[in-house]
Amino acid sequence: MEKKIITISRQFGSGGRTVGHQVAEKLGIPFYDKELVDQIALESGFSAKFVEEHGEHSPGKSLLSYAFAPQGIPGVMNGLSTADFLWNIQCNVILQLAEKGPCVIVGRNADYILKDREDTLHIFVHADKEFRADRIVRLYGESEKSPQSRLNEKDKRRKVNYQHYTGRTWGDAKNYDVTFNTGMLGVDYVSDIIVDMVRRSQEK
Amino acid sequence: MEKKIITISRQFGSGGRTVGHQVAEKLGIPFYDKELVDQIALESGFSAKFVEEHGEHSPGKSLLSYAFAPQGIPGVMNGLSTADFLWNIQCNVILQLAEKGPCVIVGRNADYILKDREDTLHIFVHADKEFRADRIVRLYGESEKSPQSRLNEKDKRRKVNYQHYTGRTWGDAKNYDVTFNTGMLGVDYVSDIIVDMVRRSQEK
Repeated sequence: MEKKIITISRQFGSGGRTVGHQVAEKLGIPFYDKELVDQIALESGFSAKFVEEHGEHSPGKSLLSYAFAPQGIPGVMNGLSTADFLWNIQCNVILQLAEKGPCVIVGRNADYILKDREDTLHIFVHADKEFRADRIVRLYGESEKSPQSRLNEKDKRRKVNYQHYTGRTWGDAKNYDVTFNTGMLGVDYVSDIIVDMVRRSQEK
Repeated sequence: MEKKIITISRQFGSGGRTVGHQVAEKLGIPFYDKELVDQIALESGFSAKFVEEHGEHSPGKSLLSYAFAPQGIPGVMNGLSTADFLWNIQCNVILQLAEKGPCVIVGRNADYILKDREDTLHIFVHADKEFRADRIVRLYGESEKSPQSRLNEKDKRRKVNYQHYTGRTWGDAKNYDVTFNTGMLGVDYVSDIIVDMVRRSQEK
């Protein structure tokens, strides 16, 4: 079966976004990351910044989060919490993007949302904490929190969000066609392997 | 870091054993599967058949299993249950084999036992139930149990055994350098990728 869509789920700081970007470039297909956020923002009425910050996070505060409904939107949310409302839009946007043609989608539980599309290759990328801590400081700079607690916090949120909306375990190998430890294999090599997988699937 | 040892953990019927065999053959290094069982049998005093059947299984009946102690062995077991006694020997045998030189080791929680050796590449292999059910019937024949229940039973035992002795989750991507869905990628292609990973690590 030819693989046209590639979803990349990733631990924070593991280089999953860079892998996705490289794969899209080598295959000459669109890479959806920022575009995904913009589209969800457009369809939800929330700002891109709000979607960026809340889209993959824990729905634990969803009861309180009705308060964040954007102007003019509450009626449209049909009694859903902000998190559930965003989730519905996220599902629609991702399903529509996949319909448009070959692409790479990073994060946003796209592996689950597209689980019934057989033309999709599902990837998970992880690395040890040392590699990731070093990487986030290099890419995003220092912050008042330690790199370790930034990693723990973000991973925990992604995990809880994934569990809540999919009923599956985040990072369980069985959810993905391939998973990679980028800390050991390196980002460039991982991209090369994924590109080879996609090309082989197209030869059959 | 040069990778010399390859551990392959696998869902029952996913082709992990075949992958391991192919990798060992292509790299010209020993493949430990049956040999591992024989060595554990030799050092424990149990029969190879007993080790084969109980080594990766649930330790749930360990209190009862003192009854299985082989002739002349009870004194040597130092009050350990059969499962714990076998586990200790399994750890020693695997650590010794890894010391001997490059090799491929299939199953037996070798990924955990060798987690502190940086020259080890850890692989997990899985596939969907349809692929695996078809494969076990083809390779091992029909039995009175349905293929589905044979898969469920064996996977559950491996999972419980792994959790009990390692405190980790079986099949969690983060325990392995790479995981593969052989049902999607095919056994031969997966072997090729692993061989390439090992060769690249040796070039550095």
